[in-house]
Amino acid sequence: MDVLVNRPKTQRGEETLMKICVAAEQVFFEKGYYGASIHDITRLASVASGTFYIYFDGKYNLYKFLLLQYSHEIRKHISKSIRGCKNRREAERMGLKSWLEYIREHKHMYNIIWESLYIDKQLFVDYYANFSKYYVEQLDAAKAKGELIDVDSEVLSYVLMGVSNFIGLNWVLFKDADNFDYVVDEVMKVFDRNIFAPET
Amino acid sequence: MDVLVNRPKTQRGEETLMKICVAAEQVFFEKGYYGASIHDITRLASVASGTFYIYFDGKYNLYKFLLLQYSHEIRKHISKSIRGCKNRREAERMGLKSWLEYIREHKHMYNIIWESLYIDKQLFVDYYANFSKYYVEQLDAAKAKGELIDVDSEVLSYVLMGVSNFIGLNWVLFKDADNFDYVVDEVMKVFDRNIFAPET
Repeated sequence: MDVLVNRPKTQRGEETLMKICVAAEQVFFEKGYYGASIHDITRLASVASGTFYIYFDGKYNLYKFLLLQYSHEIRKHISKSIRGCKNRREAERMGLKSWLEYIREHKHMYNIIWESLYIDKQLFVDYYANFSKYYVEQLDAAKAKGELIDVDSEVLSYVLMGVSNFIGLNWVLFKDADNFDYVVDEVMKVFDRNIFAPET
Repeated sequence: MDVLVNRPKTQRGEETLMKICVAAEQVFFEKGYYGASIHDITRLASVASGTFYIYFDGKYNLYKFLLLQYSHEIRKHISKSIRGCKNRREAERMGLKSWLEYIREHKHMYNIIWESLYIDKQLFVDYYANFSKYYVEQLDAAKAKGELIDVDSEVLSYVLMGVSNFIGLNWVLFKDADNFDYVVDEVMKVFDRNIFAPET
């Protein structure tokens, strides 16, 4: 992998890097990737323009770094929230709920993640392909433990990502809901039952 | 609803409007909404610049018109393909397959539809909210006929849209597959069974 960021060696440097990332998030969200300038970002972060280049080669690497951070943070958040779950079903229910709670606090993520499709399609592909790969490992492990039926893990990973993303769109981005129990329970019905009546 | 397009009264006018729309699709896909100029569109369509304004007030209305057209065309295509289906399960299977086939022929649709999030969030919200509304009607009708279990129709509509969209991302946009039977059958397992082992 290319080096996206020149990692700071001091605590102070880490704080400056963090300030740049937080500002970049805000600027990318408000102005979009193409409308955002490094000057906008350093100004909002209250750091000197030259400081930016201590860490990043340019805007593209910063964006790519943010995207990678999101992917890590989302996985870390979900994986922490499902730690005590006793099986895959419980992990899926809890994972969906904690995803919805997470994006409620980070609503601009949809905009920033999906904008990758317009910046460099490969970034967008990699984002979901990596997520799927990670998901497939979890699903395969669940199958090995007999917690999941025999269904193609890659297909199931995209089914589950599609469900989380679109449920998130409507209940977080569109409706700004603050309690997700009802919607999560309704989603689980789809995984728990034959949703269609048997063919006659 | 606002008048988006000044509808032509002649066959020749309809053809010109169509040429403008086809060119706009291409230009929006290649340059993005913000990068596309009316001049790019009229040049590609081989029509005089002034001709554009016979039909549209500006770029925004043309984009909004295209989005509405997509929504109609997708629904028309799917609804045609499921016409002979004997129940909702068969309609969902066939609908998913025909959606995948449709976007294989119209790959730029993802880009153009999702860009609405960056042009005017309300366009994006309306696009999916309208699709959901239409879906809910179908699902309620299926419930009334006893072809579907009792699950919240709005939740299920977003589940199904999420599944179609993300399966489409991976198998059409990323992998460029040309046979969808396998993936569609695997998806149907999720709807046909309790995918998780019963809790012990």
